[in-house]
Amino acid sequence: MANVYDVAYDLEKALRNSEDFTALKQSYDEVNNNPETKELFGKFRDIQVNLQQKQMNGQEVTPEEIEEAQKLFADVQQNETISKLMAAEQRMSMIINDLNKVITKPLEELYGPMVEEDGQQQ
Amino acid sequence: MANVYDVAYDLEKALRNSEDFTALKQSYDEVNNNPETKELFGKFRDIQVNLQQKQMNGQEVTPEEIEEAQKLFADVQQNETISKLMAAEQRMSMIINDLNKVITKPLEELYGPMVEEDGQQQ
Ligand SMILES: [Ca+2]
Ligand SMILES: [Ca+2]
Repeated sequence: MANVYDVAYDLEKALRNSEDFTALKQSYDEVNNNPETKELFGKFRDIQVNLQQKQMNGQEVTPEEIEEAQKLFADVQQNETISKLMAAEQRMSMIINDLNKVITKPLEELYGPMVEEDGQQQ
Repeated sequence: MANVYDVAYDLEKALRNSEDFTALKQSYDEVNNNPETKELFGKFRDIQVNLQQKQMNGQEVTPEEIEEAQKLFADVQQNETISKLMAAEQRMSMIINDLNKVITKPLEELYGPMVEEDGQQQ
């Protein structure tokens, strides 16, 4: 019987060699090798994390902060390199999500369908 | 190159056929096939979820609720069938956690070590 950890290492390897991971890595390097792009993306990420934390802690987000975030988002969307990276990240996040669903299927069958975040059962 | 989804299905199969999953399933059925044990475990789970939700929402937990939870926990610990299930669940949760770490290693290498919940970097 195949050992789960052995197969997990196979999956890691498959993911590492996948086109999607290669594309992600390439976009990531492209963004980070250009100081201007790197700075813009870093600023955007910082403000995103900052706003999310404020919301989670129930802190007030000022109109100035919202305006700054919107301005940065517009800049980021106009930057082709960053847009490509964000699309690749979204794709990878979808794949990881899919993999988790596949792997935990035996548990879902045992415990019954979970209520999803959108409130629907699957 | 191996398709990530194909390998994920292999991993699902390996997990489903693993001794750990088989033991979990067996304990789960044992608990649920005995109406008394099933009821006790159900009550314990309900009160656990209830207390967790109250804590997350910042609601007050009454001394009576704490006492009831402690009493149920004592009953549950004395029940061999339930103790076995809880140990099997903890083991499975550890395995799933390990698998996730292995699979997302390429991403961790790309983005750098994440700060863990315990505040340490790995
Ligand atoms: Ca579900
Ligand atoms: Ca880490």
